[in-house]
Amino acid sequence: SCPRDNSVVKDINKMHQSNYGIGGFSHITVAGALAHGMKEVEVWLQTISAGQRTPIHRHSCEEVFVVLKGRGTLLLGSTSLPYPGTPQEIPVFQNSTFTVPINYPHQVWNSDEHEDLQVLVIISRPPVKIFLYEDWSMPHTAAKLKFPFVWDEDCLDAPKDEL
Amino acid sequence: SCPRDNSVVKDINKMHQSNYGIGGFSHITVAGALAHGMKEVEVWLQTISAGQRTPIHRHSCEEVFVVLKGRGTLLLGSTSLPYPGTPQEIPVFQNSTFTVPINYPHQVWNSDEHEDLQVLVIISRPPVKIFLYEDWSMPHTAAKLKFPFVWDEDCLDAPKDEL
Repeated sequence: SCPRDNSVVKDINKMHQSNYGIGGFSHITVAGALAHGMKEVEVWLQTISAGQRTPIHRHSCEEVFVVLKGRGTLLLGSTSLPYPGTPQEIPVFQNSTFTVPINYPHQVWNSDEHEDLQVLVIISRPPVKIFLYEDWSMPHTAAKLKFPFVWDEDCLDAPKDEL
Repeated sequence: SCPRDNSVVKDINKMHQSNYGIGGFSHITVAGALAHGMKEVEVWLQTISAGQRTPIHRHSCEEVFVVLKGRGTLLLGSTSLPYPGTPQEIPVFQNSTFTVPINYPHQVWNSDEHEDLQVLVIISRPPVKIFLYEDWSMPHTAAKLKFPFVWDEDCLDAPKDEL
């Protein structure tokens, strides 16, 4: 069920947290379109365990990361090739911030061997429409839209029966 | 001069920080429209000293706060009266999040006696257009637009001479 909450102030420690079936991952929607009525921005708190990676994906929205704890690697593919290609590997670290340009295929990798990577993530145009790549050589046109994304599934109203 | 920086990853500890002439205040534009080319969201890191308050103000954008350190009070005025009126006083605290509804007059007060209040602030529709109130009884229509706001002044191109 969707953790709807219209209170002005929320204790993040008490907000709904889940791995949504993804190993070594934790997600909290701190301020969300579906659960909290946001229209223009959405804020997530995510923790990625040592060695884990997000899927390779893209989305046509702005995205800002603030690294609260740990370190890792941003892998950033190409939009000029017909597929992401060999990604740039860009180190990120505690108290750093990074942005992912609109529609760039990317992956966040906790490349540390021990410590969690905790990030605050800000996106525009919620709820997020994520296109998933199986690998860096998959054509952009073959990436699969997963909508609603896993943390939005419980909050998006089921489509009405068409009579 | 404007601290423009187009690098993907930035060390927040090394980013431009200033009080912009406001006592007991510190501001870093972590991801900004004018300095970093953001179009839809902007992220700030702000520190308010014990006892200090932001001005009473409103803006027609979404705003999300994440309290990283300290505690304080959100003062929230009315949009149904012709002036903000006696504000609601809503406690905020470390690891809490709060949103300010679009166009609501508000003020963030570090109501603690000792500790800094550090917040990460996310807004939509950058750069921010802030309407300032002198007090809670000033009519909404009398609130004064301050644009560009202080931290955007060095980055907004001077208007061209009209010939």
